[in-house]
Amino acid sequence: MKISFIGSGNVATHLALAFQKTGHSVLSVYSKNYQHAVRFCKKIKRCCPVRKISELNPTSEIIFICVTDREVEKIVSREFISKKVALVHTSGSMSLDVFSEIPNPCGVFYPLQTFTKNIPVDFSNVPVLLESKNRELLKKLKALSKSIGASGTVVNSQKRAWIHLSAVFASNFTNHLLSIAEKILKNNKLNFKLLHPLIMETFQKALRVGPEKAQTGPAKRGDSKIIKQHLKLLKTEPRVRLLYERLTGSIVDFKDKG
Amino acid sequence: MKISFIGSGNVATHLALAFQKTGHSVLSVYSKNYQHAVRFCKKIKRCCPVRKISELNPTSEIIFICVTDREVEKIVSREFISKKVALVHTSGSMSLDVFSEIPNPCGVFYPLQTFTKNIPVDFSNVPVLLESKNRELLKKLKALSKSIGASGTVVNSQKRAWIHLSAVFASNFTNHLLSIAEKILKNNKLNFKLLHPLIMETFQKALRVGPEKAQTGPAKRGDSKIIKQHLKLLKTEPRVRLLYERLTGSIVDFKDKG
Repeated sequence: MKISFIGSGNVATHLALAFQKTGHSVLSVYSKNYQHAVRFCKKIKRCCPVRKISELNPTSEIIFICVTDREVEKIVSREFISKKVALVHTSGSMSLDVFSEIPNPCGVFYPLQTFTKNIPVDFSNVPVLLESKNRELLKKLKALSKSIGASGTVVNSQKRAWIHLSAVFASNFTNHLLSIAEKILKNNKLNFKLLHPLIMETFQKALRVGPEKAQTGPAKRGDSKIIKQHLKLLKTEPRVRLLYERLTGSIVDFKDKG
Repeated sequence: MKISFIGSGNVATHLALAFQKTGHSVLSVYSKNYQHAVRFCKKIKRCCPVRKISELNPTSEIIFICVTDREVEKIVSREFISKKVALVHTSGSMSLDVFSEIPNPCGVFYPLQTFTKNIPVDFSNVPVLLESKNRELLKKLKALSKSIGASGTVVNSQKRAWIHLSAVFASNFTNHLLSIAEKILKNNKLNFKLLHPLIMETFQKALRVGPEKAQTGPAKRGDSKIIKQHLKLLKTEPRVRLLYERLTGSIVDFKDKG
């Protein structure tokens, strides 16, 4: 398939690498910052950087829009793109409706994974959430995700929004709690590595038996003495303290309501 | 070494199995519920269940107290145990001072890991936090942790309390967020397995590059539109909504303050 990109960040780069590796042609790329497009093309051979969206290679079958949600809206409302080419965004939270005013075949190709710069992604394990009202495009998107080894799942915008919300809890928020744990240790001149085995086992156990069944700890046991001790330790950190209280309350609530 | 146990739950069982496997003698066990002590002895061969703490084998060198914090205090204040035998608790949050009124050699042997019933523990990867004012006992505790392959680290009660607090954030609270993610998906008839690859990569990345560096997401980016959309989705779940707001605020705060 012939593909071009709008956006040259992590998602665009990892997708382009995967597409090219499996025989697709990544023809051209536009970025707000031209130098970023040039840098992108150093990784994606035979891809041309362009200075305007209208200069993207006209033989492209699909243009992947890999930019922030706000920019997707701007691009869709202001830029003219030949109505033959399919437009696909890669956002977890943005509805397909963002394309409702334009005549192109439109779709969503949302890889449910966190990407890191310069660390290769193994798509064979990534669920890609697909959506399109255009049957032919949906077929193409399924084939594309299959070709890079990802498991494509068709879900509508509403379900995708819920999945994205759950992903924020499961990924961004859990990661933040790990940052807090790290900070608590650092403040006491202790090494975060002490917690590595516990963190590994926590996540693996949650995936093995399910997180609800895996829950342990003072909040789950209703051990008010330890909870009070922890709140006392946190008296100089009011925000972290509030978070501790809120999470403890939520675990108790979860336990009671099931 | 000759060891007895007070308490027959997860921690006692996993420690006893590891001790016995590496050539130590687990002589006797007391549990509030005698049947639990009997059940424990089905797993730990040649160990005798007893009905009273005073009946624990008098040749034991160390008694491991593996019960809730509140019960440790009760046992220490009310039970008579020959002052020759060393007493060791396995709690993350309880100070060594709990033993201050008794003449026995006393210590702490806290395995920083989450244990699951019937799932064997590989101690070669578990940090065990050790404490004792008695040099000879501390030496024995180091040897014990080494013998089961664990890495023993000597820390005082204050540091151990901070480590335990950080562990609650890194394990209990992260696990709870995974439960919320699972519930959000279930409520929308979606399978939690969709999130497995994301969860795996999230914690592996946090351990690889550090959680602060790994942080992504709408809160980190300051994407107020997505945050508003998520809060709207959560309007019928006020507790989870508050938690979302609190965690988002905390990520923003972390970003600003560093």
